[in-house]
Amino acid sequence: MRSFLLGSALALSPALTAFAETPARPATAPAPSPAEIVAASPAADWTAIAPADLLVMDLAADAAGKPRRVVIQLLPPPFSQGWIGNIRTLAAAHWWDGTSINRAQDGYVVQWGDPDGEDKARAKPLPPGMRVVPQSEYEAQPDPKSMERIFARLTDQQIEINLQQVHDAREPTPVIGGGDNYALATWFIDGWPVASKLETIWPTHCYGTVGVGRDMPPDTGSGAELYAVIGHAPRQLDRNIAVIGRVIEGMEHLSTLPRGTGDIGFYRTAAERTPIRAIRIGADVPGLPTYEYLSTTSASFARYADARANRRDPFYIRPAGGVDICNVPVPVRRRQP
Amino acid sequence: MRSFLLGSALALSPALTAFAETPARPATAPAPSPAEIVAASPAADWTAIAPADLLVMDLAADAAGKPRRVVIQLLPPPFSQGWIGNIRTLAAAHWWDGTSINRAQDGYVVQWGDPDGEDKARAKPLPPGMRVVPQSEYEAQPDPKSMERIFARLTDQQIEINLQQVHDAREPTPVIGGGDNYALATWFIDGWPVASKLETIWPTHCYGTVGVGRDMPPDTGSGAELYAVIGHAPRQLDRNIAVIGRVIEGMEHLSTLPRGTGDIGFYRTAAERTPIRAIRIGADVPGLPTYEYLSTTSASFARYADARANRRDPFYIRPAGGVDICNVPVPVRRRQP
Repeated sequence: MRSFLLGSALALSPALTAFAETPARPATAPAPSPAEIVAASPAADWTAIAPADLLVMDLAADAAGKPRRVVIQLLPPPFSQGWIGNIRTLAAAHWWDGTSINRAQDGYVVQWGDPDGEDKARAKPLPPGMRVVPQSEYEAQPDPKSMERIFARLTDQQIEINLQQVHDAREPTPVIGGGDNYALATWFIDGWPVASKLETIWPTHCYGTVGVGRDMPPDTGSGAELYAVIGHAPRQLDRNIAVIGRVIEGMEHLSTLPRGTGDIGFYRTAAERTPIRAIRIGADVPGLPTYEYLSTTSASFARYADARANRRDPFYIRPAGGVDICNVPVPVRRRQP
Repeated sequence: MRSFLLGSALALSPALTAFAETPARPATAPAPSPAEIVAASPAADWTAIAPADLLVMDLAADAAGKPRRVVIQLLPPPFSQGWIGNIRTLAAAHWWDGTSINRAQDGYVVQWGDPDGEDKARAKPLPPGMRVVPQSEYEAQPDPKSMERIFARLTDQQIEINLQQVHDAREPTPVIGGGDNYALATWFIDGWPVASKLETIWPTHCYGTVGVGRDMPPDTGSGAELYAVIGHAPRQLDRNIAVIGRVIEGMEHLSTLPRGTGDIGFYRTAAERTPIRAIRIGADVPGLPTYEYLSTTSASFARYADARANRRDPFYIRPAGGVDICNVPVPVRRRQP
């Protein structure tokens, strides 16, 4: 397995070439911020998200009567498709309608589903057709050829740099693609942050990540109980619990919820829970806008990620020279008219 | 500079020995969670925080009339003492009383101070005795001998492991002490998360970190404008802006504030701002409880950090084998009676 780690940097994609080069700039033009790079990116660098890959949660209106909608993008194959199939079944059955947000633990997660789910006598029955998903689906095992291609394209040069840097004891990982405290390599696949060791890839828990609540192992959860991360990336959950998507709009409706005062942030009373009016697949929601993400293989994304790792815009005096995967949130927006 | 990187692991402190060893456990006793390790730690492993090192912010009561108090612990020397001196001056002058929280940007920061601070004609005058603090104080330059001791104690073995691991292309950093995407080494000093390259140490931006808002460089901010991190660690701010402390109680009063809808989360109207009733140094607040933190040189902390990096408690099926510095929040509590 080792050969590709020391492969040629000549195989670099155009995107990674953009990572590697710092364009010379006239002294009068300040370097753009990550947000400015995103704003200036051409329409062709954005990829539309199919409405069938969105999960739309409508909470009860807030105290001022304003609607609260949370839009979640579901992970694409090869990740977590067993749970995502269950989530499609649950949404089609309108199973979540009338359930609630039951937990808000500061700096960690907000969690929703059946508030009586842990009480077998009172739990809401699940719809027919639900799968029991094995723990092995916490990770993906792509065929070795595609894995080698991915490594070759995105991490060859990086790992060489890392080796050199550790020997020189000078600088940490300068751009994404290298390892972090949790994985040998981190990068993006089809718009999603992922981490890997040599034989396996998994989606990472970052701010806004949505996952599947579960009981003690070997339970893996059905998908009926979901949570969203509202604090620093809890990467210890990676490969221990299923990631199924991320919040792409309306995150503030979750992150600002009053924190629960019960154990691990559960609400003590029913009155504290926020009712869920409906959860639907996006294709079943009339009038939903089209969402799009900045393609993670585009030159714009490469410049954006590089700028997240090396802030050269005027506010900064010292670029960090590196960044962790969860500090490079993939830009998502409503499709521009 | 290289010799100490390959020094002997025999110099390991008792705390790091605890890191390195996985105690054998009878099959019937489940491994404790980080919270259980903290709960079981002896009183002697906790260090009291002097009231003079606390900053107490009382916000206006919430909609239900409940008081909202945020308690912030100030950084000890050698970090950021120029700004912290200014903050003491501002608190003694009651300068913040009647100011407000002016910004809440989801996943990033909440910021407070004079809402008219950017308008020179209307800005509230600062009290006498404020220092202009140089950018050099974003970092600390300890004397080389103490630096070498710190490295020798906390990272020798780690860097050896890293070197071996990169060569073997097997595993990432297994415990704190090693580098991350932003620094050559990360660890704790006197209860605080820090990062370093060889010649310098700086405090890290984590969830709950409090820092000093500023204008464009070379401005470094006075300390009158403060922010708290409410999302994933924005480590790109390290060494670009002054860290002065962390929220140790009442974080939820900041993290749940409605997000501002103006540019970068500023509130558009005065009515949206949360009034600040008073900010005082803890020594000037009658009846304040004593707070204490789990000493970061204690055996309990070593076990806690190891457990954060390697979750072996029953909920987990796969310990991560590593952790980033901001995912090891230092336990702080009210002193136990």
